[in-house]
Amino acid sequence: MPGRLNVGVIGVGRMGRVYAANLAQRVPHARLVAVADQKPGLAASFAREFGIGRFYESHHGLLGDPDIEAVVVIASTSTHKEMIVDAARAGKAVFCEKPISLSLEDAHEILRVVEETGAFLQMGFQRRFDAAYLGARRKVEEGAIGTPLVFTSISRDPFRPPLEFCDPKVSGGLIADMGIHDFDVARMYMGEVQTVHAVGGALAYPEMKEIGDIDNAIVDMVFESGSLGVVQLSRNAVFGYDIRGEIWGTKGSIQIGYFRQTPILMMTREGITHDAVPYFFERFESAYLTQIQDFVDKVRNQARPSVTGADAVAAMKISLAAQASFQEKRPVGVHEMAVAAKH
Amino acid sequence: MPGRLNVGVIGVGRMGRVYAANLAQRVPHARLVAVADQKPGLAASFAREFGIGRFYESHHGLLGDPDIEAVVVIASTSTHKEMIVDAARAGKAVFCEKPISLSLEDAHEILRVVEETGAFLQMGFQRRFDAAYLGARRKVEEGAIGTPLVFTSISRDPFRPPLEFCDPKVSGGLIADMGIHDFDVARMYMGEVQTVHAVGGALAYPEMKEIGDIDNAIVDMVFESGSLGVVQLSRNAVFGYDIRGEIWGTKGSIQIGYFRQTPILMMTREGITHDAVPYFFERFESAYLTQIQDFVDKVRNQARPSVTGADAVAAMKISLAAQASFQEKRPVGVHEMAVAAKH
Amino acid sequence: MPGRLNVGVIGVGRMGRVYAANLAQRVPHARLVAVADQKPGLAASFAREFGIGRFYESHHGLLGDPDIEAVVVIASTSTHKEMIVDAARAGKAVFCEKPISLSLEDAHEILRVVEETGAFLQMGFQRRFDAAYLGARRKVEEGAIGTPLVFTSISRDPFRPPLEFCDPKVSGGLIADMGIHDFDVARMYMGEVQTVHAVGGALAYPEMKEIGDIDNAIVDMVFESGSLGVVQLSRNAVFGYDIRGEIWGTKGSIQIGYFRQTPILMMTREGITHDAVPYFFERFESAYLTQIQDFVDKVRNQARPSVTGADAVAAMKISLAAQASFQEKRPVGVHEMAVAAKH
Amino acid sequence: MPGRLNVGVIGVGRMGRVYAANLAQRVPHARLVAVADQKPGLAASFAREFGIGRFYESHHGLLGDPDIEAVVVIASTSTHKEMIVDAARAGKAVFCEKPISLSLEDAHEILRVVEETGAFLQMGFQRRFDAAYLGARRKVEEGAIGTPLVFTSISRDPFRPPLEFCDPKVSGGLIADMGIHDFDVARMYMGEVQTVHAVGGALAYPEMKEIGDIDNAIVDMVFESGSLGVVQLSRNAVFGYDIRGEIWGTKGSIQIGYFRQTPILMMTREGITHDAVPYFFERFESAYLTQIQDFVDKVRNQARPSVTGADAVAAMKISLAAQASFQEKRPVGVHEMAVAAKH
Repeated sequence: MPGRLNVGVIGVGRMGRVYAANLAQRVPHARLVAVADQKPGLAASFAREFGIGRFYESHHGLLGDPDIEAVVVIASTSTHKEMIVDAARAGKAVFCEKPISLSLEDAHEILRVVEETGAFLQMGFQRRFDAAYLGARRKVEEGAIGTPLVFTSISRDPFRPPLEFCDPKVSGGLIADMGIHDFDVARMYMGEVQTVHAVGGALAYPEMKEIGDIDNAIVDMVFESGSLGVVQLSRNAVFGYDIRGEIWGTKGSIQIGYFRQTPILMMTREGITHDAVPYFFERFESAYLTQIQDFVDKVRNQARPSVTGADAVAAMKISLAAQASFQEKRPVGVHEMAVAAKH
Repeated sequence: MPGRLNVGVIGVGRMGRVYAANLAQRVPHARLVAVADQKPGLAASFAREFGIGRFYESHHGLLGDPDIEAVVVIASTSTHKEMIVDAARAGKAVFCEKPISLSLEDAHEILRVVEETGAFLQMGFQRRFDAAYLGARRKVEEGAIGTPLVFTSISRDPFRPPLEFCDPKVSGGLIADMGIHDFDVARMYMGEVQTVHAVGGALAYPEMKEIGDIDNAIVDMVFESGSLGVVQLSRNAVFGYDIRGEIWGTKGSIQIGYFRQTPILMMTREGITHDAVPYFFERFESAYLTQIQDFVDKVRNQARPSVTGADAVAAMKISLAAQASFQEKRPVGVHEMAVAAKH
Repeated sequence: MPGRLNVGVIGVGRMGRVYAANLAQRVPHARLVAVADQKPGLAASFAREFGIGRFYESHHGLLGDPDIEAVVVIASTSTHKEMIVDAARAGKAVFCEKPISLSLEDAHEILRVVEETGAFLQMGFQRRFDAAYLGARRKVEEGAIGTPLVFTSISRDPFRPPLEFCDPKVSGGLIADMGIHDFDVARMYMGEVQTVHAVGGALAYPEMKEIGDIDNAIVDMVFESGSLGVVQLSRNAVFGYDIRGEIWGTKGSIQIGYFRQTPILMMTREGITHDAVPYFFERFESAYLTQIQDFVDKVRNQARPSVTGADAVAAMKISLAAQASFQEKRPVGVHEMAVAAKH
Repeated sequence: MPGRLNVGVIGVGRMGRVYAANLAQRVPHARLVAVADQKPGLAASFAREFGIGRFYESHHGLLGDPDIEAVVVIASTSTHKEMIVDAARAGKAVFCEKPISLSLEDAHEILRVVEETGAFLQMGFQRRFDAAYLGARRKVEEGAIGTPLVFTSISRDPFRPPLEFCDPKVSGGLIADMGIHDFDVARMYMGEVQTVHAVGGALAYPEMKEIGDIDNAIVDMVFESGSLGVVQLSRNAVFGYDIRGEIWGTKGSIQIGYFRQTPILMMTREGITHDAVPYFFERFESAYLTQIQDFVDKVRNQARPSVTGADAVAAMKISLAAQASFQEKRPVGVHEMAVAAKH
């Protein structure tokens, strides 16, 4: 049995901290050796709090550490290309949070370097490691619902991000930023997407129009198999975090998801009430842990990555096609994005 | 195929009106010929509203009507003995709402006359005709849960009745008035009860102490088979009407009941909310109709009554034993009631 | 208070029988005077069974009956124009089951005659009278969810109709035949639809391709207000009948619908299981009754119809636009249908 | 802020392993310094697997370690007195899994030594740290349901333990072994219990009669406040693990618990199905972690224990009274147990 894997985390902001804390305390087969963050003092502070011996303000330092076998990149999307490419060239295994990059050009460049160096790259799409999505996958593979015919996916945030993060130039916009998770699991259950059509609007937050983004969207899809799909996205689930899916097949259907966070039900004159899942971290806490354990085990066992760079690119193309459809008010073939990518 | 059954209804107060309206409009195999009510003008008013040709202010008039083949008795419990006995002697088939009487002595007298006259008597325990309780019965009979081991039953009213109706001398008290439904279905699923033990209190409405009644009770039971049971009764389900059951067996369990009246779910900042079943009429509307249809069909087809006078007496004994247990603070054998009845 | 309304039913096939039986037995303010059906013997047989005095094999006979004040038309869609026009000219109030006609031209002709004669015409869209859809409407009108932003509607049948009824020339095809209910409630909650886009396929029943129909479809919509909508349609809900809706607003969301028919839950080694709503009649039994009661009361009280011919035409245009979108693989404006209708 | 607490775990069998692994990896404010287990090799093996430096085959060795500030005792109940007394005398803070001992005499001896030495003793009743039970507690304290009137608690295991563990001399029998959790939370929500009455039987596993135990029981309770309670216990929840509670108050009710483990719903011809919570570890995984974190924090902050030895004794007395009631077939006052304890 292989020993513990020495891991470094690049980026210990909000999400990076979750990953690093999991690696420090809850992944028995990993040893968190070092953290890096370009924000002054952040890596040092994390290292002190969790008793990690080494910390860096640049990813170069961390990548230069010969003890480190694998790196986890949770930095801003605009830096992904540099991080992954440098890590691959430094001979490290890489885990990178989605999305792989802001442009298809960058994504293809990353894939090229990964192939050239033979580096191990696993992309972060935590929904694939959630008990519900995973359980549904097993059921589909067992044939419990026959052939999947229609895929439905709902992702709704309880509030909009600060406007600076909504800027489509930074986040990719609602469809790319949120929808990429739905498009990824769509592929997992249903195969490749052929065409998409999107409608949307800045309905709940008129101020989003000014930055060129929307807060609600519906994307319908036709898969290469002829199967159908629809993704609903929203930024105004005022009651909580609404993540649901459905796989509709020839022999039955699987409903995925839940609303209630705390298993108590209040019954008063005002009605029968329960609370809601507050946000993504509560909903996917276990999935984030399972995902990084999976990465560590895949590297340790020299297995293939569970989610590849090619998977990330495929989901990205769907979101770009949906974005184009919304803007051009016509159904758009995902292959049209592929053509664009070759430029 | 037998023709339509000519029916008269004795008592068109709140519940009697429900029965009579069902018979007038929703039971194709019955013809509502006459209604009677001792309250002046009530029978006439009902007859006018529903286009019924005959009405009486005394049950004697209705029973003297030779066209009437069957009577439905929905009068106050204290009059049941007279009504049933007179109807049996007049050669009418009888349906009588539970409970059969206020005392075991009266109940035994009724049974004696019914036997002597060969009259058809079916008792009203609508829960037996509810889709949920009926569905559970079929599942038990099919062996879906193996041998039933533990029976749980919950009956909770949204508010207490007016104090004059709570008087145990009139209503029999909480345990008899409400619990008799639970004891009846307990027998249906589990067989005869051997001993009961009851605890209770005037917890929500201190004013009930003054009239000698309680508003919450728990009754545990041991069946003759050795199986166990528990009945929970309450008058303060402030959110609505709470009727639930459970049959726990060697191979599984059946949960009976539901909370939500209207199939909509509200999701707001205040939480995720639905409404509740308001009261017994909404909960058992279909059961009341099915029950009276069943009576009509049983009479028309000269079949045996679905729920007999003996069933009503058996449930009554359990409630009397539970009442005695509560007062004497000891487990009481149901057979002790049987002895008392022989005086 | 106006007296009972004398009603005749034209068409006592499967659905007509439901309407006629309701009118015969469960609508106190109506008197079912006559039935007509062109299928030999059917009207006579119904009349005999329900004790109705008059029956006809042609609607002309029924419309010539001067006692009849109102007619309920539940005949095949291809005959609707003739029936409504003849009834309107005979001075009868008319209730007609959806859809109003097979073509927009016929629908406009009907509306013209209704306007010309001043006839009362109410269209049958029973979903509007369902407790859940009605409850949701009240909540929306009360402002419980703020401004509605996204409407979701799911309609799935447990099996496909016989192929002869699937023929789009008869049924209008999946999108018109099933979707019209969804488009109707969409308008009720959200206002008028501007554009639609539809995808679909014969996924579950390949034989449907031969008759030119599909068995699964997704239709996205943009309302004139800028709000969004999506309708999912299917013919292969193998577990039962799946009718759901959602209205997503600035202050919350309403989920409409339910899966379970019988309120029991089975808990065994095989899992925790309940049954499903079998089909439309069980799901909408009360709604059909409430709807026809509403028609009777509206006529009796000389009120305006709850659902007009114009409502039926508006829903029809959406379904035609969706059908065109599916065939032409482009978003289609509902106004394009309006133009076509003028020819 | 106090530093990390040095902890030793005594007993690394099935449950002890859970505690020790949590302390090793998931409790940031604790440092697992040593483990002990009298079973040869078990402590060493655990230490090797988790990288713990010290291990012992006797608790004396561990208690003699001056670095250790606190010990967690997860050994068999019959050894609790010796472990707690020795630890208290060695000046260690102690966490001990329920029950505190097999006899009230031993429990009182433990309490005496704890008082005498001033040792910190916190008892393990993980249900108090479960999100649902905790959330319900907050709601009760906020007054959300007014005054609690009736407490209901259900605890059902998916199967019986091996017969050797069922022996009432070892486990205390069904009522003590399982019911103690229900009696503990009963006290938490409702205050002290005055009298109990229990019925039960070896209904599912006849072989349990031979060892003098039962597999199903119902215990009703009257609290000192006059409020009521009922506990249902079973060893044959064949579908999974069934843990539920209800607190019924003057202004409403709280339902506690859930059935479904994985948030997916399967809809097929066989019905609509989900899975069940498999067993206690899945149900209370988070509660066990929260509980031991709470212990560590309470010791570090020199706060009072969340659950005291007196709490453990109080729950024990209720279970002994219930056991006596079952055997003597009469209601038993909890104070009768208190008297016995003074011998």
